[in-house]
Amino acid sequence: MSSGEFDVIERYFSSRVPGNGPAVALGPGDDCAIVDVPEDEQLCLSTDTLIEGVHLPPGVSGAVAAQRCLAANLSDLAAMGARPAGFMLALTLPREDPLWLDEFSSTLARLAGEYAVPLIGGNIARGSLSLTLTVLGTTPHNQALRRAGARVGDDIYVSGSPGEAAAGLRGLDEGNAAELIERYEAPTPRIALGLALREVASAAIDVSDGLIADLSHIAAASGCGASIEASAIPLSDALRVASGDEALNLALAGGDDYELCFTASPDSRPAIADVAARLSLPLTRIGVMTDSDEIVVTGADGEPVRTPDGYDHFLSTPRRTPSG
Amino acid sequence: MSSGEFDVIERYFSSRVPGNGPAVALGPGDDCAIVDVPEDEQLCLSTDTLIEGVHLPPGVSGAVAAQRCLAANLSDLAAMGARPAGFMLALTLPREDPLWLDEFSSTLARLAGEYAVPLIGGNIARGSLSLTLTVLGTTPHNQALRRAGARVGDDIYVSGSPGEAAAGLRGLDEGNAAELIERYEAPTPRIALGLALREVASAAIDVSDGLIADLSHIAAASGCGASIEASAIPLSDALRVASGDEALNLALAGGDDYELCFTASPDSRPAIADVAARLSLPLTRIGVMTDSDEIVVTGADGEPVRTPDGYDHFLSTPRRTPSG
Repeated sequence: MSSGEFDVIERYFSSRVPGNGPAVALGPGDDCAIVDVPEDEQLCLSTDTLIEGVHLPPGVSGAVAAQRCLAANLSDLAAMGARPAGFMLALTLPREDPLWLDEFSSTLARLAGEYAVPLIGGNIARGSLSLTLTVLGTTPHNQALRRAGARVGDDIYVSGSPGEAAAGLRGLDEGNAAELIERYEAPTPRIALGLALREVASAAIDVSDGLIADLSHIAAASGCGASIEASAIPLSDALRVASGDEALNLALAGGDDYELCFTASPDSRPAIADVAARLSLPLTRIGVMTDSDEIVVTGADGEPVRTPDGYDHFLSTPRRTPSG
Repeated sequence: MSSGEFDVIERYFSSRVPGNGPAVALGPGDDCAIVDVPEDEQLCLSTDTLIEGVHLPPGVSGAVAAQRCLAANLSDLAAMGARPAGFMLALTLPREDPLWLDEFSSTLARLAGEYAVPLIGGNIARGSLSLTLTVLGTTPHNQALRRAGARVGDDIYVSGSPGEAAAGLRGLDEGNAAELIERYEAPTPRIALGLALREVASAAIDVSDGLIADLSHIAAASGCGASIEASAIPLSDALRVASGDEALNLALAGGDDYELCFTASPDSRPAIADVAARLSLPLTRIGVMTDSDEIVVTGADGEPVRTPDGYDHFLSTPRRTPSG
């Protein structure tokens, strides 16, 4: 086993990425990790796979792979209002590439520290590049933000500037703004926002497939529809490098942002303004949950605008990527 | 999304594989699953990836893929003495193949019922065939069977007949015994044994890489060595289709059996005999933990025999497989 699976794990992961945290009774290295869940809390779990050429650009760097896979998974905890407790990594690599592994694991270590989320287990195998993370977090009993909690009349919000990551992905080979590229390559999971929304929001989801596509999951789970004002959609200056319609389409249908879309009673507007101020994060009211079974986006002329579907990883061909 | 990721999940998984169980507060379909861990228990978690052409034969059927991936992962819970509580599945498929998916998901549903382990989440993506499972289970506080618990003088045991799966894998293209092939294609995770060993064994591991290779992890974690009597290694009649040395090598170095290797104080011999009788499962004493830093296998002549290394998935080329 001179430079095999065990050596790779030891050299790049065990010795670098924190494996212990408050909830971790036993970290990596046994048949299972052991986690303590506080008596008055529940455990939230999510698993997500990123594959080179599908969810990651061909030739993706170790740093971008680490950033995007951890962000995509932590974002699911954020959408539940969960506090991260740990994660497991199943990494499949075509070969043992020391430079790639070095960059990947040092980036992972930095982010694991930043988000206080220890690497408690996993495995490495040989195959085409693919990363499956399973993240764990905790919420107090019955305080998790579920998709099914929205009610007719609830306000609909989105954090930050949806569409920037999609613009960055599109713009990469057109020499566009570095800040958009950064939004794709190093998205910020909205953990602090999720925690702040626990007793404020009625439902939440993270925007991974596109704002409308993801909002439709809240609507379906809650048995509601939604009405969105196109003019209310936040379009950042950076996004406005695209034409007007294009910028709106990116904001409505672009995935990969990992912003949160959430609903809340109109009574909560002051509380939400407080959260936005405290986190220095725009939380924009974009519409209202309705007693229908559809999502309608209304333009400035009062007419419905086209509602582009989100990206479906299983059916679609790979998107345009930085190198292709 | 007419026949995309969401449809595949609904058609083959949500509607077939149980998604709820006693520990499941929220099953599949939200950003996270939510699990309740009883106040006096701890959560055990493990993740493992099986890849076609590396850990699974090329052209593997849906049934064998389901059987092996669930067994390999439940086996990690068994090795901790944990009771299964749920699992997450990250499935990567080259295309939507209805026959394969039908066979895979119906087998998964049957086994999930058999082991009372609900499918609480996961995702499907497009790529070369790969399955990453994350399993969860629970143990009472501080009763998990860790690798590090063995002491010098403890007896070493193995369950069942190690080496049969490796013989089955090797024998498949030589027309050998169907029972060996079955041991490779549909291994039995030793969940009931793990539960029975909770207050009996001092350390445990499941045999996935080979008996000696896996025992060496117990030895290293416990700061011991081990002395094994070659003549004590159980060689089933089925395994004896191989020559004597070959049968022993298969038993010592063959992986994929998912038997348990465990240690226990000599005081526990009666308790272990009771467990074996109750479960109708042979538990064979094969050696003793020693005050050294090596694993020695001693032949009938009192001389050490060669101790073949276990299989290292990261370095090795794919093994011979049924179709290749």
